[in-house]
Amino acid sequence: MTNVNEPTEILSAATIEKWDDSADVVVIGYGIAGACAALEARRAGADVLVIERASGGGGASALSAGIFYFGGGTDVQRAAGYEDSADNMYDFLMASTGAHDAKLVRRYCDNSAAQFDWLEAQGVPFTRGHYKGKSVIAPTDDCLASTGNEKLWPFKQIAKPVPRGHKVAKEGDGGGALAMDALMTACEAEGVRVEADSRVNAFIRDEKGRIVGVRAKQSDGEKYFGAKNGVVLAAGAFGLNREMVSQYSPQFPDTCEPLGIPNNDGDAIRLGQAAGGDLRSMDGIIATASFYPPEQLIKAILINNKGERFIAEDSYHGRSAQAIMEQPETMAYLVMDSAIFAYPEVGHANHRLIDGWETIEEMETGLNLPKGSLQRTMAEYNEGAARGEDALFHKDSDWLQPLDKGPFAAFEVSYSNSCYYFITLGGLRTSADTQVLDSSGKAIPGLYAAGACASTIAQDGRGYASGLMLGPASYFGRVAGENAARAAG
Amino acid sequence: MTNVNEPTEILSAATIEKWDDSADVVVIGYGIAGACAALEARRAGADVLVIERASGGGGASALSAGIFYFGGGTDVQRAAGYEDSADNMYDFLMASTGAHDAKLVRRYCDNSAAQFDWLEAQGVPFTRGHYKGKSVIAPTDDCLASTGNEKLWPFKQIAKPVPRGHKVAKEGDGGGALAMDALMTACEAEGVRVEADSRVNAFIRDEKGRIVGVRAKQSDGEKYFGAKNGVVLAAGAFGLNREMVSQYSPQFPDTCEPLGIPNNDGDAIRLGQAAGGDLRSMDGIIATASFYPPEQLIKAILINNKGERFIAEDSYHGRSAQAIMEQPETMAYLVMDSAIFAYPEVGHANHRLIDGWETIEEMETGLNLPKGSLQRTMAEYNEGAARGEDALFHKDSDWLQPLDKGPFAAFEVSYSNSCYYFITLGGLRTSADTQVLDSSGKAIPGLYAAGACASTIAQDGRGYASGLMLGPASYFGRVAGENAARAAG
Repeated sequence: MTNVNEPTEILSAATIEKWDDSADVVVIGYGIAGACAALEARRAGADVLVIERASGGGGASALSAGIFYFGGGTDVQRAAGYEDSADNMYDFLMASTGAHDAKLVRRYCDNSAAQFDWLEAQGVPFTRGHYKGKSVIAPTDDCLASTGNEKLWPFKQIAKPVPRGHKVAKEGDGGGALAMDALMTACEAEGVRVEADSRVNAFIRDEKGRIVGVRAKQSDGEKYFGAKNGVVLAAGAFGLNREMVSQYSPQFPDTCEPLGIPNNDGDAIRLGQAAGGDLRSMDGIIATASFYPPEQLIKAILINNKGERFIAEDSYHGRSAQAIMEQPETMAYLVMDSAIFAYPEVGHANHRLIDGWETIEEMETGLNLPKGSLQRTMAEYNEGAARGEDALFHKDSDWLQPLDKGPFAAFEVSYSNSCYYFITLGGLRTSADTQVLDSSGKAIPGLYAAGACASTIAQDGRGYASGLMLGPASYFGRVAGENAARAAG
Repeated sequence: MTNVNEPTEILSAATIEKWDDSADVVVIGYGIAGACAALEARRAGADVLVIERASGGGGASALSAGIFYFGGGTDVQRAAGYEDSADNMYDFLMASTGAHDAKLVRRYCDNSAAQFDWLEAQGVPFTRGHYKGKSVIAPTDDCLASTGNEKLWPFKQIAKPVPRGHKVAKEGDGGGALAMDALMTACEAEGVRVEADSRVNAFIRDEKGRIVGVRAKQSDGEKYFGAKNGVVLAAGAFGLNREMVSQYSPQFPDTCEPLGIPNNDGDAIRLGQAAGGDLRSMDGIIATASFYPPEQLIKAILINNKGERFIAEDSYHGRSAQAIMEQPETMAYLVMDSAIFAYPEVGHANHRLIDGWETIEEMETGLNLPKGSLQRTMAEYNEGAARGEDALFHKDSDWLQPLDKGPFAAFEVSYSNSCYYFITLGGLRTSADTQVLDSSGKAIPGLYAAGACASTIAQDGRGYASGLMLGPASYFGRVAGENAARAAG
């Protein structure tokens, strides 16, 4: 475990007596954003040096499932018979994610199908398969799957629902490593240089305010690396830094486990801040402990400890998780009848079967809910479900079926008694050109950011879709690399 | 000017030696929520005492334009030929406001048309007129007008757009006083008692945790008032308390002027907090300095100091204002060509004409925008407008017209150089039954809240519609009064 919250600072170039090395473009971090940035910068003719804190590349990206959120008519979407367009994808993302910068989202959607082709051309393997089930990570090696709230009201009325999750060709989890292998092989072939075991702890700025290099700590001391054209910061999220997480999300339950690598401790964000970078959506978190699969459990209802429903149960799992977090004492139960009874399959979540009861009234008492509350909630729900309607949350009629076949059962899905995993979504505020912006919206010359340390499209758990980390990281990584290479030093 | 931030506290009933007076229901505040609460409590058979800090009733409600957000098929909507339903209204509010509590919104929509009838039956005057123009407050005495984002994308795809602003029968501004006159006359006729010039500064709680009275400061000292069944807190917003505003919205420009009365200093909210009440959306603010009327200015574009658009210009004025606040340095310009040139009419806003220029390039330089930025923005906008499309923000084609007839002009609409007025929207978290909830979601026995000191439907400027203060205040005021009267003391 590394030390977190090491000081980060900004140094004046005039004080640097000797540069240990230099390149046209310095990329900090060798996960997916960094690898894509390095490749594009190199291909734009730059001498590129990647500085990586670990002993080798891959980062959190290599530990991920390898899901990219792409659309606008990718080859895989077409092969599966889906018509999508950049406009349709844009409309969905603007309506569902709460993204701040329309131009940035527009750019991503306009270039999304081509970005898929580019990744494939670098050797990242994708099948043309389509997994149609509801899952968190498809158990097969199929590429395409629905990984967000596309089919949820009201988004289905705003944009035509199509699947946009593109998973690397690997059964189940673990495709991220294949993607990183391919990209790092490409980097090596192009002559990208890598300095590993090097922890950047300062930016170096010239007298005009331009970022012109970095200082990095290595086993034998601190070294200075010059960057003639620009620096790309691509060094990940901050979920492993508990102190930062509770600073920005004081209510976030500390029972949750971060997903990532130990180096996801916020170094990148604090470095960007030291350079004057503004932050966005730092309280944005995607957490998950999905109660489905099996799909039939989507026909159950989620209630809080007041005995009331609070969200459409066909929401994407990260959205439900966010809603559960916002309930009193972050408590919630999954309530079902015997017709749909099943155990949640997502292993780590450990949603505990609390008990079974002959009647709803007994269940209400057993769960210690206010008298009459669950009876009222279920009477209303069942009455609507029989008509194929959910007046409160517009759950799709596919999942509406009266829960009236006793006995009844409830699973604990509270944060305190289940294992929720999370990723932080906030980071440095960047323009559609990946320039890091200060609090007045001005670009910091010479500094670009991409990947999990930047705030791009995903803002919070309500609007998240799986693939909104890797997808934008890969695309905006390329943009950052190309822009840094072309910037006048 | 009164002192703000006076201590509020909670006292044990056992320590009260002598009660100066008592009633079945004590209502704190005599604005619209308080008056409606008092009336319904009285009609449910309770002896009702209203405690008001000012020398007479009316509060901020009496100074308002008297606009109520009602729908679901009111008599006025029908007279104007609009079909609305509770479902349609609910869908719009759920999608646009960001309201947390679906059940509360559902209840408001289901009872909205009847609430209009009720107000009219109390003598609040409404015409059956319909003002069709785009304005902030209709200049006529017409009742019905569009006062929100109903016609804005994506909401127009989620719910059928219909007008829901219901204004009291008075030309232009000032209808709120007529509404309060009628309601206070009704209260008097029903025998509601009023204790004026009395500032409540403590709740009194019995040994079971129930709120059973209040302490109020009068000119001759502190008095104790018992409440056998319950206390309704209806004492307004906190916009006049600058310290609280900047505590919850540190970025909010202090150039803005609060709308309200001096007593809107957060007393109600701090009292509720002292009793254990939780707060919601305290950073929610609706600000306005509308750039329209005249309507033709909606065909102009809003740009920030990067030369970029950031919102659909046909958004309701409070939504545009919120977006401007989120721009770099809270700066924005309204840019137009000579074909649509006009001066904004909203007098207080003082949007300054910066200058006129022969070409867009000159305007870009004149506004000190990044080179090429405004030229790019306008070329893209004009190209789309010619086709009737706005790919970035989906501004309605009604307002799309290429801005290419020089000379060009820009008005300053920045917060720093215009006069924005604001109202705070956050307050005590309440259930659909108007019970004040603590941070674990438990109701505080004996305590109800309604009106601007409670957080109900409106959460922020992006989702606000005019009438979302008075409408829910009047309805949930009634609910609070009736529930308090019926509560077992």
